[in-house]
Amino acid sequence: MSETADALRPHELAVETPQGFDAGLWFIGRIRTPWTRRGDCPHRGDAEAGPDCRIELSPRWQVALTGIEAHERLQILYWMDQARRDLVLQNPKFGAGATGTFALRSPVRPNPVASSVVRLLAVEGTVLTVRGLDCLDGTPLIDIKAAFGALA
Amino acid sequence: MSETADALRPHELAVETPQGFDAGLWFIGRIRTPWTRRGDCPHRGDAEAGPDCRIELSPRWQVALTGIEAHERLQILYWMDQARRDLVLQNPKFGAGATGTFALRSPVRPNPVASSVVRLLAVEGTVLTVRGLDCLDGTPLIDIKAAFGALA
Repeated sequence: MSETADALRPHELAVETPQGFDAGLWFIGRIRTPWTRRGDCPHRGDAEAGPDCRIELSPRWQVALTGIEAHERLQILYWMDQARRDLVLQNPKFGAGATGTFALRSPVRPNPVASSVVRLLAVEGTVLTVRGLDCLDGTPLIDIKAAFGALA
Repeated sequence: MSETADALRPHELAVETPQGFDAGLWFIGRIRTPWTRRGDCPHRGDAEAGPDCRIELSPRWQVALTGIEAHERLQILYWMDQARRDLVLQNPKFGAGATGTFALRSPVRPNPVASSVVRLLAVEGTVLTVRGLDCLDGTPLIDIKAAFGALA
């Protein structure tokens, strides 16, 4: 797991992190997007007008896609592996003050699990084509869930 | 991390899981609900009519709550630590067939990260009172995020 120790911006605050982890994640695939630098990623995915992205699932889990075509909307969880995990106050816009990490959706958080609701366009083998992601090309995939209702 | 090896139901299918984990999670608090047995949990949380639940954050992360009161809706991520992780086909309703894990929101999945959108009622120190959770009492907390739009 890589962690980029970016410098703190004004008003930001870091804490000492716990020793050792409490649970483990498996990366179950990779996400392919047009964005290769953090600064290029959109602030938030657009399930209507955003570009088509690919979710490449590891073959081990392929059978778990059974019936997925019935769902136009899916919730995707992924791991923001470029983000530092120790900030409790952040200043994403370089403004005059800082905001608590839990009052934001920034990738910088203790457990950098991101959540997006996407539109499912196609399923071919272990590859899903979707619209609505906002992450870097190569981002590790954690989960795919049926989404009900109008999850933003 | 506990894992309950429940017996397979008809039509269910398990796969061999990967060796070793790819990333680690910290439990950042605990969720307090009225439900102490899995069978008692509601199928889905109700942010309007459900009972009040408590999110108890570890003091280490308290400053990260700064500004949280501005958000009526929060997205909560938590770890379903009672669920097995190797099922690709499930039969939650004991029906005639099975459904792929990724076409469901069952707690049984490779990475048992659950996601609920709740209504924030009160903040007092490290304790949030919210409505809309569906999990067992004592469930480990992974993340709190600002929620925008009508996330179901």
